[in-house]
Amino acid sequence: MLRVGIIGYGYWGPNLARNFHRHPGCQLKLIADLDLGRLQKAAADVPGVHVTASVNDAVNARDIDAIIIATPIRTHFRIALAALKADKHVLVEKPMAASVSDCETLIAEAERRGLTLMVDHTFLFTEAVQTMKKLAVELGDLYYFDSVRANLGLFQRDVSVVWDLAPHDLAILHYLVELPVDAVTATGACHAGSRVPNIAYLSLELGGGAMAHFHVSWLSPVKSRRIVVAGSRKMMVFDDIETSEKLKVYDSGVSIKHDNEDGEYRMQVDYRTGDMVSPALANREALQSEVEHFLRCIDRQEKPLSDGQGGLAVVRVLEAAQRSLERNGERVLL
Amino acid sequence: MLRVGIIGYGYWGPNLARNFHRHPGCQLKLIADLDLGRLQKAAADVPGVHVTASVNDAVNARDIDAIIIATPIRTHFRIALAALKADKHVLVEKPMAASVSDCETLIAEAERRGLTLMVDHTFLFTEAVQTMKKLAVELGDLYYFDSVRANLGLFQRDVSVVWDLAPHDLAILHYLVELPVDAVTATGACHAGSRVPNIAYLSLELGGGAMAHFHVSWLSPVKSRRIVVAGSRKMMVFDDIETSEKLKVYDSGVSIKHDNEDGEYRMQVDYRTGDMVSPALANREALQSEVEHFLRCIDRQEKPLSDGQGGLAVVRVLEAAQRSLERNGERVLL
Amino acid sequence: MLRVGIIGYGYWGPNLARNFHRHPGCQLKLIADLDLGRLQKAAADVPGVHVTASVNDAVNARDIDAIIIATPIRTHFRIALAALKADKHVLVEKPMAASVSDCETLIAEAERRGLTLMVDHTFLFTEAVQTMKKLAVELGDLYYFDSVRANLGLFQRDVSVVWDLAPHDLAILHYLVELPVDAVTATGACHAGSRVPNIAYLSLELGGGAMAHFHVSWLSPVKSRRIVVAGSRKMMVFDDIETSEKLKVYDSGVSIKHDNEDGEYRMQVDYRTGDMVSPALANREALQSEVEHFLRCIDRQEKPLSDGQGGLAVVRVLEAAQRSLERNGERVLL
Amino acid sequence: MLRVGIIGYGYWGPNLARNFHRHPGCQLKLIADLDLGRLQKAAADVPGVHVTASVNDAVNARDIDAIIIATPIRTHFRIALAALKADKHVLVEKPMAASVSDCETLIAEAERRGLTLMVDHTFLFTEAVQTMKKLAVELGDLYYFDSVRANLGLFQRDVSVVWDLAPHDLAILHYLVELPVDAVTATGACHAGSRVPNIAYLSLELGGGAMAHFHVSWLSPVKSRRIVVAGSRKMMVFDDIETSEKLKVYDSGVSIKHDNEDGEYRMQVDYRTGDMVSPALANREALQSEVEHFLRCIDRQEKPLSDGQGGLAVVRVLEAAQRSLERNGERVLL
Repeated sequence: MLRVGIIGYGYWGPNLARNFHRHPGCQLKLIADLDLGRLQKAAADVPGVHVTASVNDAVNARDIDAIIIATPIRTHFRIALAALKADKHVLVEKPMAASVSDCETLIAEAERRGLTLMVDHTFLFTEAVQTMKKLAVELGDLYYFDSVRANLGLFQRDVSVVWDLAPHDLAILHYLVELPVDAVTATGACHAGSRVPNIAYLSLELGGGAMAHFHVSWLSPVKSRRIVVAGSRKMMVFDDIETSEKLKVYDSGVSIKHDNEDGEYRMQVDYRTGDMVSPALANREALQSEVEHFLRCIDRQEKPLSDGQGGLAVVRVLEAAQRSLERNGERVLL
Repeated sequence: MLRVGIIGYGYWGPNLARNFHRHPGCQLKLIADLDLGRLQKAAADVPGVHVTASVNDAVNARDIDAIIIATPIRTHFRIALAALKADKHVLVEKPMAASVSDCETLIAEAERRGLTLMVDHTFLFTEAVQTMKKLAVELGDLYYFDSVRANLGLFQRDVSVVWDLAPHDLAILHYLVELPVDAVTATGACHAGSRVPNIAYLSLELGGGAMAHFHVSWLSPVKSRRIVVAGSRKMMVFDDIETSEKLKVYDSGVSIKHDNEDGEYRMQVDYRTGDMVSPALANREALQSEVEHFLRCIDRQEKPLSDGQGGLAVVRVLEAAQRSLERNGERVLL
Repeated sequence: MLRVGIIGYGYWGPNLARNFHRHPGCQLKLIADLDLGRLQKAAADVPGVHVTASVNDAVNARDIDAIIIATPIRTHFRIALAALKADKHVLVEKPMAASVSDCETLIAEAERRGLTLMVDHTFLFTEAVQTMKKLAVELGDLYYFDSVRANLGLFQRDVSVVWDLAPHDLAILHYLVELPVDAVTATGACHAGSRVPNIAYLSLELGGGAMAHFHVSWLSPVKSRRIVVAGSRKMMVFDDIETSEKLKVYDSGVSIKHDNEDGEYRMQVDYRTGDMVSPALANREALQSEVEHFLRCIDRQEKPLSDGQGGLAVVRVLEAAQRSLERNGERVLL
Repeated sequence: MLRVGIIGYGYWGPNLARNFHRHPGCQLKLIADLDLGRLQKAAADVPGVHVTASVNDAVNARDIDAIIIATPIRTHFRIALAALKADKHVLVEKPMAASVSDCETLIAEAERRGLTLMVDHTFLFTEAVQTMKKLAVELGDLYYFDSVRANLGLFQRDVSVVWDLAPHDLAILHYLVELPVDAVTATGACHAGSRVPNIAYLSLELGGGAMAHFHVSWLSPVKSRRIVVAGSRKMMVFDDIETSEKLKVYDSGVSIKHDNEDGEYRMQVDYRTGDMVSPALANREALQSEVEHFLRCIDRQEKPLSDGQGGLAVVRVLEAAQRSLERNGERVLL
């Protein structure tokens, strides 16, 4: 039975703890946090768990096989590296680390030691995204991926809205669309006294003429969580605000023919508007599926669906977007 | 009684004709189009109207005081200039012309002759935008203007989606927000065999740290027509797809305080979520209000709400966006 | 070529006129109305049409083959009967007449003379209802039909909301569901100074344990036009307020098994929640399809889809509902 | 500090337990249920709580001041009466009891002993209903109350959909509208093998010409939870499915004038369509407010907002509705 320790018991840690605690295939043995109040809460939430304020002790605990990291972004690399070096499997909160080179170091360390390194891209484990993945082959050639994730709130102090919200949608892009990101252009603004951008727009050039665009915002009067994936044959819309029919697949499209008969240029456009299908989605908590996946990947030494490479791909775009933002929207090649 | 001639009887011309025909303050005397079938339709639609295939005759007709131009964009400048030189008032379809310099020439010509030059930015005359204009002062400092105008269809052959759809929202931005546009960054793509971009994202730097963003698309599975205008005190959402409650005003916002007491940096964020008000909107056709406004501006020699300067402001951004698109999203300063 | 006369040029008459006028298979020769202003409008709308204030002349005009009746309900019977007796085919506005016996007289007269008698149940000719009819066989056994048609406005002076709004949905029920109506219970109220009920609820017992319910209102703050048809295998929702995806078919249901093993009663409920499909609907004006259907039925002597029997079925329920309303919701057997 | 025992740990019991457990003003000491599995869960959920399979022991426990009853409806009366007779305060799940006379007995017993008897009409404690109560005075004279509560699922075995779902909306009606219910007419049907009605429509005659209508269903393809309260001056819509803007207040209405000048009857209708306001609602769990209210009522000997009389009013309508259903929609006077 896998023995698990969680480091970080702030906003997300309790959700991880609840799911690891109730999973019969592992044992949640330890929770670490620097804050005493949080440790008390951890002790109350998980009967019998060992709590500690020492990250070092946690990472090196003898009776722990896997470390789950739910701390602020800037600490991910240091803790994950220490855990890997102590021969623990690692599941790290998104984004994987604060830089591409840190991600690469972690990947190399995990590979060298044959350890599982997984990134907590929770959305990949939702029924909606799993269903999108199955349907992606029906879309034909990818035209574009367009995402909006906006809300009023939680302004962060040390990371911009790009590092906070975009990882969700970038991870979904990377999972659904197996195309390289060639370039990133990002614009944004700091409002209401914020020192980091609280609204940003990312434009990505993908291979094959496709593009992706991300609108992330902490300052929207209405909540939006919507992804459109459009292909040459079909288009999908995933609207996570909806309480039902979150995913819709449109059998719609356009095709254009150009001809030049008798010396005159003509363009003929055919629109196709077919049925829309909203697939039934099972009602399962994503985090539960993710915990199960993590345990199975460790057990069978399989590559996680959200492995280090996926985490790296996301951070690569985040890093480029930040550089673009700092240079007033300059195009950054990858 | 003002005597009016319409040039161009394709998609939009019949709407203009219907509204000028039924207005008691003017007389629709002439309709010109190169296509004979359209002229037949014009003659059937407007009893007693004179029809002609000669734009030249129309522009120079002695018994006409004002020329309404609803022809393809590339012909706007030539026809409008000829009409002004023949001492006619001019109402020209959006966008005003295909270049900034053309717009400037038209403005100068109209001014020299004391003629009314108005651009058909129809949306400015909707009850929704008129109400937004009244409410704009309550928003406080502008944070951002965000617009999405997307649909499946009408691919155009010779102009991109930027020149086709963005003028609507750029005109609304210019009307509501009296801030200069300092720079434009645009990205987009050509899909489905299109030779011009059919999806594009425009990012505008406005004075005072505010920004604007426009998403225009001919290739969306679902129709969207939504504008968010967010200020330091209130935020407005105009959703033109809704059949009722198109406009919503949110008494919501965020304010952030930073302090550095006892050597440690702290950030305090206050969220305010107040009531939402959806103002009742009168049910009047925008084009009818616009025709009335055009006639009154001529009669009283008043500056139209959508005058040449407004048309120029829109074209200035379109031109910059096109340049940015051609240079892979390079930032273009204005 | 069939020669057509329209009697009544108030709210609905102009729509009928436009569609008959532009159909190539008939000739709109005559429009009658008691109001001179309306006759002037008719003359302007339909070039060359003959107008008259004499219903008698219209009904007996020698050069007319079919009479379209768009007058107040209480006059339907008299005019329709006169038209049939003058050997004209008849299309009469809904509801067909003010009583069951009047409907029966009209049906008998039309049959005796071999004339086409059709009722203008326009909704039956919408793409949505046509598609519902095709899909109805997939529903399994009918469980219930539930409809809400509510709005703020058009209070009528002489007929209640039941006679005004319920005919639409009753006609759809009759068309989709081939079950007899066994009993009607209706409740309602008169508000805001109205002397006839402006809100009403109709409950119908259908054969086979199925039921139907109708909520009609002139006094709702929000507009609703929604029909649910639920069967043992599938369920359909038609929401006519939606601008897209008006029709949705749910592959969902419930089945219950009772058993009594080992002396204890048990009930097992199985819920099935499958995909939802929203069929693409062609974008055709219902009235245009209806005019075409009327002409073809006359030409080929076919039974109209909304024939006298359909009109009678609707009036039978209306009459029973009115009786129930007058008797405080007493159940009225049919 | 008030000492609390909960009887019944099925669907709703754990929610009650969680809220009583975490409230600092009371002590959750005991949980009773006949099912051992549930008792184990209770023991795990509430550290230190005493669990028992004996309802009798629970009701008579010496160290308990208040009993919370979350058992099946048919047992409410017996347990509540025993608890009152053991001098405990009582909070009983809705509906209060299975008959009017049982409710009356409980009320009398509580009064005689000076004990607090409260019914768990949770919705009354939501921010939405609290806000509706405050706004109710602005509505003018009540015209109607219309409610729809429909879903696919939870078919019950021993009670009909009326006893299961209608108490929520009947309690809201009773709380918002201080008008007597004069008569009830109910229709419904049993589908899918159910032996009790799974869909029902209740029509209530209220004093002063107002009416109320309730649509409850376990067999709807889409979830609905919507209440409209319409008055002579304003109308409110509470849509509990919405994730935001659940409550909307419309400044809309109709007024009708009749006159009889110069011998001819005329009816003039004025429609007023004003702004819509959606009040901001605090984000507080209703059950938490309810627990607080229960404790305060006991402490200060105040009448609960959902007291026995409220519970009785609801059961009175339920009983009448059931009788009406059994008699095919016969009108039942109260």
